[in-house]
This record gives sequence, C-alpha cells and structure tokens, in this order.
Amino acid sequence: MILINENYTKLPGSYLFSDIARKVNEFKTAHPDATIIRLGIGDVTKPLPQASIEAMHKAVDEMAHAATFRGYGPEQGYDFLVNTIVENDYKARGLDISADEVFVSDGSKSDTGNIGDILGLDNIVAITDPVYPVYVDTNVMAGRAGDLLDNGKWSKVVYLPCTAENDFVPSLPTEKVDIIYLCYPNNPTGTTLTKDQLKIWVDYALKNKALILFDSAYEAFITESDVPHSIYEIEGAKEVAIEFRSFSKTAGFTGTRCAYTVVPKALMGYTKSGEKVSLNKLWNRRHTTKFNGVPYIIQRAAEACYSVEGKKQVKETIGYYLNNAKIIREGLSAQGLKVYGGVNSPYIWVKTPSGMTSWGFFDYLLNELNVVGTPGVGFGPSGEGYLRLTAFGTLENTKEAVSRLRKISI
Amino acid sequence: MILINENYTKLPGSYLFSDIARKVNEFKTAHPDATIIRLGIGDVTKPLPQASIEAMHKAVDEMAHAATFRGYGPEQGYDFLVNTIVENDYKARGLDISADEVFVSDGSKSDTGNIGDILGLDNIVAITDPVYPVYVDTNVMAGRAGDLLDNGKWSKVVYLPCTAENDFVPSLPTEKVDIIYLCYPNNPTGTTLTKDQLKIWVDYALKNKALILFDSAYEAFITESDVPHSIYEIEGAKEVAIEFRSFSKTAGFTGTRCAYTVVPKALMGYTKSGEKVSLNKLWNRRHTTKFNGVPYIIQRAAEACYSVEGKKQVKETIGYYLNNAKIIREGLSAQGLKVYGGVNSPYIWVKTPSGMTSWGFFDYLLNELNVVGTPGVGFGPSGEGYLRLTAFGTLENTKEAVSRLRKISI
Repeated sequence: MILINENYTKLPGSYLFSDIARKVNEFKTAHPDATIIRLGIGDVTKPLPQASIEAMHKAVDEMAHAATFRGYGPEQGYDFLVNTIVENDYKARGLDISADEVFVSDGSKSDTGNIGDILGLDNIVAITDPVYPVYVDTNVMAGRAGDLLDNGKWSKVVYLPCTAENDFVPSLPTEKVDIIYLCYPNNPTGTTLTKDQLKIWVDYALKNKALILFDSAYEAFITESDVPHSIYEIEGAKEVAIEFRSFSKTAGFTGTRCAYTVVPKALMGYTKSGEKVSLNKLWNRRHTTKFNGVPYIIQRAAEACYSVEGKKQVKETIGYYLNNAKIIREGLSAQGLKVYGGVNSPYIWVKTPSGMTSWGFFDYLLNELNVVGTPGVGFGPSGEGYLRLTAFGTLENTKEAVSRLRKISI
Repeated sequence: MILINENYTKLPGSYLFSDIARKVNEFKTAHPDATIIRLGIGDVTKPLPQASIEAMHKAVDEMAHAATFRGYGPEQGYDFLVNTIVENDYKARGLDISADEVFVSDGSKSDTGNIGDILGLDNIVAITDPVYPVYVDTNVMAGRAGDLLDNGKWSKVVYLPCTAENDFVPSLPTEKVDIIYLCYPNNPTGTTLTKDQLKIWVDYALKNKALILFDSAYEAFITESDVPHSIYEIEGAKEVAIEFRSFSKTAGFTGTRCAYTVVPKALMGYTKSGEKVSLNKLWNRRHTTKFNGVPYIIQRAAEACYSVEGKKQVKETIGYYLNNAKIIREGLSAQGLKVYGGVNSPYIWVKTPSGMTSWGFFDYLLNELNVVGTPGVGFGPSGEGYLRLTAFGTLENTKEAVSRLRKISI
C-alpha cells in the first residue's frame, strides 16, 4: 500500500496570499472604478541588469553551436560563477571562503527548504517570529515541528518573538535549541541585527554546538555600516553557520532563478553517538544526487551582475527601491504611524493604529484607501498588529500610495 | 547539538564516473599520443533546437523591459508551457491528462529524487537492476533502503534483475512491494517494455495499491509501435503511476534544465490507518513550498520544442543519435558480440565477451582500442558482465569507434 508522509497532513493550507487575492477581487468587483495600488507583494518589478541581458544573449548563441554548446555542468555551479562569487562577496570583504564551500542553486527557497534533508529529525528548531513561512512548513513536512496548537504555534518549534517591545532583536532561547533560522535584513520586518547583536547568536551556537541557518537574501539593501553583509564577518561563524544568498532581490532574478549557499568545511554536525561529520560533504552529496545544476545561460546572467557595468546597474535598481522605501517610511511616520525597517530593506513593517488587528488594518486600507498590504499575522503569531508594505512598486505608485496613506484617520 | 541525518553516512561514495576519469587520465599520461574516443558519457553533444534558441533570445529581451519583465511565475510552470505539454504529449495521443496534473521542474533527477518527500518511510521499494543510481541513493538518504550488504545490495530494497536471461523484462516481485521504479526506454540497458509487458506492472500496482514511478526520460527515442510513449496508455495507470518526462535527452536540455512530472488526481496514497490522500495535492504542496519554478526564459525554450520547426529540429537530432546507435549495434553484432538496446534508445548494452567482468572489458577497450565505455556493474549487481555504450558522440567518432571495436580479439 502506498504510504504517504503523514507529516504533510498536519500542514494547514497556505492561504495568506490567496486570501488577500480573494479580498482584493471582491473589492474590485464591487468597485470596478477604484484604482488599487499593491504594496503587498514581495516581487521585484524592475527589469534585469543590462549586463545580464547581454550575457544571456551571448550564452544563448553558444548553445546554438556544437563547438560552444554546454551539456551537464558541475552540479555545484561553473567555476566562472563560483570564483566570481568568492572574489566579490567574500574575499573583497576580507572573508576567507573557498570555492568548494559555495553551492550554486536555483533559489534560496529550494535551499532553505532542502537543507533539512541532511539534518536529523531530533534537532530542536528555533525560528524568529514573524518569519518566512518556508522555514516552518519544511520542518513540519520533515516531522520536526510537532503538532499545530490552538495559538497558531507548532508544539516542538521554539519561537523567538521579534516585536517593537524588544526592538525586533530576538532574545536567546531559554531552552536548548539545535537549529536556528535567522534572516537578516529580515523578511518580513525589514529590521537588521548589528554585528554585536549577531555575535551573541554565533557565540550561543559555538557554545551549544548549534547550527545557524543564515538567510541573507536581502543583503544588497544594506546601507548602514554596522550591519553585517555576511555572517562570516563574525568570528567563529564558519564553525556554526550556513549562509543562503540569492540574486532574486539583488538583481531581479525572481523569475530567472539563481542563488547560492555557503557550507563551510569547518562546520561539523554530529551523529547521535557524537561522531563529527562534515556538513559540507553531506550537502555536496545531496546537491549532486538530487540536483543537476543551474542552467548555463542563467549562470552567465548571474556572473554578469559582478561586472563593472553589472554592479552599477544592480546598485541603481536597489537605490530605486530604497528610495521608495524611504518615501513610505517617512510618509507614514509623518502621519504618526510607527514604522520599522525600510532602511536596509525593501520591507516596511507598520504597527497598526489604535490596536487594530492585522486583517482589520488590511481591510481598512483596501476599502478606504485602495492600498493593498500584507497582514503581519500571516507571518506568524508575533506578526499580529502589524502590516507589511514593500518598496518594489514604481516610484509613481509609491508616491500615490503614500499620499493616500496620509489620509489615514483612525 | 547539530544532529545529522545518519542515513547519509551509509552511502558509499559515488565513484563510478570518477574511477573512469582516473583510469582514462592514467592511460593518457602513459600514452599521450593515443586518440581516445568516449562512448561512456550519457550527455548530449548536439546544440539546442534553433526554435529554442530564437525563443530564448526573445524571452531575454522581454526581461530587459519593465513592461514585459517576468518576476515570480507559478511554481508549477507557466500555462503556455503546461498547456503545450498537455496538448502535444497527452491529448495528441488520446490521453486525458489535465493541466493541474503537470508540474514543470528543473529536471527529472530532482523530481525522482524529491518525490520521496511525500511518501512514508515504511514503503517497500523495488528497483530494476541495473538501474539509474539516483533511485537507490535517494532512498538510502531517506532511510528506506536499510543497510548495504556484502553482495552490493541494500537489505530492504527489492531487486528485480534485468539480464539477457530474462530478455531484460523484470519479473513481478515475489514479496509485496509498495513503490516500483520503472525507467523505459531503460537507462542503462536501452531496452523497452511493450504495452502488454507494462500492463502486467500496472495491474500489479492496482491489485496491491502500489505506486509506479515511471521515468520516461528517453521517450523521444522510441521507434517501435508497440512501445508505450506514456504509462497512461495502459488502462488504470492514472490510479497508480507518476510519470517523469524531461527535455534533457529529447531536446538537448542537459545544461538548460527543464522537465516535468505528471501526478494524476486519480492517484491516491494512504495513511497508516487507511485514509486516502491525493498525491497530486501533496506534491503540489511540496513543489510550491520547496521550489520556485523554472526560469521564464527556459520555459519559453521548452515550449518552442513543440512548434512545427521545433518538432522538426528535435526529430532531426534524435535521428542523428539513433543512427549512431544503429552503427554501434550493427557493428558490434557483426563482430559476434551480444548487444541489446539501441533501437528505441541512445544506449547500447553490450555483453562482455569470454565471461570478462565489466571492469575487465572496460580496461581492455581503453588500453587496446582507446575506446571508453561505462562498466555495467556500476549500475547495480545485475549489470556485472555488461558495458554501456552511448550514441551521443559525433557520427565520425562513432564510426571510428566501431571500426576499432571490430578489432576486438578476445
């Protein structure tokens, strides 16, 4: 009899964005003339860097001739891309990461989801709350999360609340944990940890032989000098941390698909009997057995982001989004709202006024101002009372949205 | 403490192709003037169809402008590709597969590896032997394989030998099994099952509530009319089979990465207490949680394979490889060797002469004739005494290799 993985049956449906879509559609049907501005979506809108476009045209032409055609490439990524990553994202910052510690992939969603494959089921998992849902859902699927409780939490997961009360800086867990997901600059709150604040986590992991899964998808948005661009800026991190990086938000690759994951050779996991095992070796085995590499054409597009022209184009686009973020942040602050993030991030995390719920504020913005955000509670229990806005719209729409938001009267 | 998935420690290294590379390099060092012909590798050499090249140039240009730029797409694949697949690969053959049963992915290696995610660990797995190593390795990683025995077999896996003795047609298992991997046309043997032979397996699965994982990566090479192009040609298969299809060997996408998997809505798995659960729903949850879709540009390349021009170009390339296969098959037969496959497949499976081992024959061909094959034993215990040759070389090299192979004197 075909037995299923019963952990999947514990997962509730993934309704956040479909619920939003339903509400928006209902409103549109009732008010066909309303102009809705969407600041809810976490997807980019600006085109790819011209350098990537040119690199892809060239690579496509190579695929048209037997002499330059590329078949299977190394599953871990071509040297031309891996070496470029190492030079620019690590060596240029004085960080000693070697080529065989970098694994190119089709996305950080895949990698943060798949990394659990090489980890035991008895690890205790900690997540910041609110959080990117993939971290939780993939642990539910694997069987590490326990059962869903009435309070919206999973019985075996350790939640680290991040709210205005603690300035969005998670406290160390009181119980011992083995795996800690950290995403900084953070999705959804847009907040960051300073080097000193991140060091507390690295030290905890070193002391407790814990693993930090550091999702750095929004690194390109960092503007402040005391915010680390890589967890490996913290001493000892190579012994405890895996870092996930992506071209999705950096260079508009959400529909082009390229990312990479760093698994240092100094990082050890343990068997139950205490034997040390290299996680780099395990991930390499997983990556070469269940993955066949990123398309050659796409790897050339990613490489081009690091050329002189490519870097300039990436910076311009990030600057455009950050300017939108500033407009939203300053506009809402001037309106007396409490806003967080948006300085080192495309996300602005807004405290709902007058103690409204996330969904209450969402409904108000949709119905009264025709602006769509994302209810914070959709990212976890500690997201209740917040709403996420994103800076990925056009400048024009962003300005119009803010002028509407300045009419908030609650 | 970071606990690892200890199943990974049971996996022996993946040495087959590195052992071959080492032997070839040693030979080259000792004989720098020898011209080695490689018929061992399972990778294509002909360029992409021109229709795909043109489609990608167009799609790259779309990504350069905000108005036509594409961010996140549906994880399951764009409608334009999914509908084209349904029309051409299923409806045109009279098979009723619907769009929401098709999941576009980056490769059949990923999908045949990841499918285990949604299946319970207590399923008994059967594989044909010899076999594509990913099926076995991914079950070892998940914990379904048991322990590696001295005879090269895994204690919990049911092996279905396919050798000249049974005409490479596996017999039904004597014990009850829950998951059966079938790859036809077969890698590595190049042999096929007729509709009647495949029906026996579908009937077994229906009777025993078993799941058939049908890998159809070499479907484009089918030339004989009684060989099914899809398992869904067999009555009842939609209730028991998942089908994996790929553009890798069909259209030269090994370095371009696109495939798809069909999970029919009629296909049910079971909880231990006997409740029915839709595998389509589970796979959809997995696919949307741990994957973010194939690049837009690549999906356009795949779609173009189905255009009038694209189909013609694909057919020409497949014809080129099949002609190579014929030359190898006929050349070796004329030399008195027993050869299998190569009619509906790019693979030719050669019985080693005079009772040589797979590696013995490999060494002989390398050292005496400077031709590289793949030792059959590398694909499983029942591959001992065979060697795999592939038709993916150039016509010129294939002819030269065969003229050398005709000098075999054992």
